[in-house]
Amino acid sequence: MIALAIHGGAGTMARRKMTSAFAARYEKALGRALDAGFETLKNGTSLDAVCAAVVELEDNALFNAGRGACYNTDEKHELDAAVMDGATRRAGAVAAVSRIRNPVLAARAVMERSRHVLLVGRGAERFAHEHGVRMAPPSYFATRSRLLALRRRVAGHHGTVGAVALDGDGRLAAATSTGGYTGKLPGRVGDSPLIGAGTYADELCAVSGTGLGEAFIRTVLAHDVSARMRYRRKKLATASGGALAGIAALGADGGLIAVDRRGNIAMPFNSEGMYRGAIDRRGRRTIAIY
Amino acid sequence: MIALAIHGGAGTMARRKMTSAFAARYEKALGRALDAGFETLKNGTSLDAVCAAVVELEDNALFNAGRGACYNTDEKHELDAAVMDGATRRAGAVAAVSRIRNPVLAARAVMERSRHVLLVGRGAERFAHEHGVRMAPPSYFATRSRLLALRRRVAGHHGTVGAVALDGDGRLAAATSTGGYTGKLPGRVGDSPLIGAGTYADELCAVSGTGLGEAFIRTVLAHDVSARMRYRRKKLATASGGALAGIAALGADGGLIAVDRRGNIAMPFNSEGMYRGAIDRRGRRTIAIY
Repeated sequence: MIALAIHGGAGTMARRKMTSAFAARYEKALGRALDAGFETLKNGTSLDAVCAAVVELEDNALFNAGRGACYNTDEKHELDAAVMDGATRRAGAVAAVSRIRNPVLAARAVMERSRHVLLVGRGAERFAHEHGVRMAPPSYFATRSRLLALRRRVAGHHGTVGAVALDGDGRLAAATSTGGYTGKLPGRVGDSPLIGAGTYADELCAVSGTGLGEAFIRTVLAHDVSARMRYRRKKLATASGGALAGIAALGADGGLIAVDRRGNIAMPFNSEGMYRGAIDRRGRRTIAIY
Repeated sequence: MIALAIHGGAGTMARRKMTSAFAARYEKALGRALDAGFETLKNGTSLDAVCAAVVELEDNALFNAGRGACYNTDEKHELDAAVMDGATRRAGAVAAVSRIRNPVLAARAVMERSRHVLLVGRGAERFAHEHGVRMAPPSYFATRSRLLALRRRVAGHHGTVGAVALDGDGRLAAATSTGGYTGKLPGRVGDSPLIGAGTYADELCAVSGTGLGEAFIRTVLAHDVSARMRYRRKKLATASGGALAGIAALGADGGLIAVDRRGNIAMPFNSEGMYRGAIDRRGRRTIAIY
């Protein structure tokens, strides 16, 4: 039994502005990432699958991660990513990096090739480079639409990509990657690379969040999903909804994707929409925005 | 009813190497930080109190935070700190900063004067400077003994300082500050500045951890204490011990200090010792190393 879910961000789309052509572009992009992850998952690990799906989303300029990331107030890109392997609870993350083409692969290198969990800034870039992770010049991340968003002071333009998976050996994994949000301060780190906040996996569930990162950090959202399952014996959907209510109580919006060890999938959000896709344990494929 | 607990790190001291004169120096330093925090707590908030205690420990070169911090492999200091206000769940943190005299005060500035929770590196330094937080040249953090530790490749030389408090209005707060550990990679961020890992406070408890940070991150230790209280109705001591068993299961050691809304204090550790001190709700004062 295998299962996979992905997201491409929550709260970034107004339904009234979404044309059917635009929606189709997003749905196609989500489909490609879902396929990339699922092909990997068929014969590989959940860890490989979540990385494959997130790389696909990072490479697509439609999403706020990797290429196409938001600009900070210095008109620069600072990217965050994390990956966690539920079976071993090993984790790796990078934050505030500007020269790594696929931050999720750098996060995985931190997990597998260092004694550390989180590396930031230049130190993270140096580590990634030394371990053969592909670098990119600042121009690679540049997109006109995101720069305009900054200059026009478009508020609340955030977004994140992520994936969670259960593989045939019963192992869960989660990965998340983001450019943060338009107009963030230089050096700002959101929830995505913080284990327990925007990314978390253990033997019960794997979780990737998207939304106003600061609220996810303050409620330790991703770990809260697991804690509700572990300590209150809640099911995945109930635990996910309960944890999400925690950020709503702080006046924030967002969503999350989660999978448990039985292959159940939950994808709740309290924002207007969430780009998302899943292939569940019965092989049923879903792609949706609202 | 008020209560305060502080720590100056766990697992850094071998009992056989600890002379009585050396122990007396640590005890005196812990006493000063405890007094600074408690004086503040008598008429102030728990947030003010934990900051006052941590500033005292940061300023003392005996402890691995602020002045006297460990060196990374580049022979530089990169400091991490966080603070969290339990009543509002507001939080602030800085990581990988090298020029801020008291990182805990920068963390508080991030909490109170930005929309963010975590700022890292140069961006964090710039923010702190702009908001009047006192800066310091790299030489301020330099100590001969820590540099020798790096050059002699002293393993496992880590440590952290922290404080937790309950004030007269029933509000809980936690603060943690650290130099990480000797020989860490540049850009490495530990658990201290990560909300839910090394620092956490809500309306149930306030927690500050010390030990092998990577394990604290992977188990989301500080939030796990709260989750055991909230979802399993465990008492503070049981919840703290249970959460600490989580890092032991990963082969790591360390300790934590915690206080709940009734003023109960827990200070468990599974390392050889933990520099610690507390003044409990009955006014009883404790200072201990082993």
